[in-house]
Amino acid sequence: MDEILNNEQIREQLSQFSGWKVSDKKIEKEFSFEDFRGSVDFVNRVANLAESANHHPEIEIDYDKVEIELSTHSAGGVTQKDIDLATEIEGVK
Amino acid sequence: MDEILNNEQIREQLSQFSGWKVSDKKIEKEFSFEDFRGSVDFVNRVANLAESANHHPEIEIDYDKVEIELSTHSAGGVTQKDIDLATEIEGVK
Repeated sequence: MDEILNNEQIREQLSQFSGWKVSDKKIEKEFSFEDFRGSVDFVNRVANLAESANHHPEIEIDYDKVEIELSTHSAGGVTQKDIDLATEIEGVK
Repeated sequence: MDEILNNEQIREQLSQFSGWKVSDKKIEKEFSFEDFRGSVDFVNRVANLAESANHHPEIEIDYDKVEIELSTHSAGGVTQKDIDLATEIEGVK
């Protein structure tokens, strides 16, 4: 089973990025784009990363905004898998 | 401005489909797929319909489930635009 990270560990690992909200159970961030198409294109890039990692965020699309929520449900919290995928997502935003 | 439909009008127009929740302000439905890729493929089909209609639902992806929420914000309720797009979405599910 993957080890659950505490808030301090999570914040340290995400410190190079802005806008991630950290709680006990998940990390989440809202990304903004030019328009709906920009949002959908981003979601497709995220989907490809998710499939490669076999780890899947919850995704909300509201026109030019996309909310990404990451958690490792099997572990009941945030693990390195979530940090790694968040880092990859930052690379394709 | 688009005319707001009442619940009865909405339900009548959506009567051929199952699973749509109707409220004063919006209609919503959860669609299920085989897996994450199935969900994302559906979202891309919905996105193409939305762009053609220039009317954009809110979309939530949770692995093999996609929640579609339709409302005409400029009118403050559900209009024919929402019914028409819901009908098109049913055609690509």
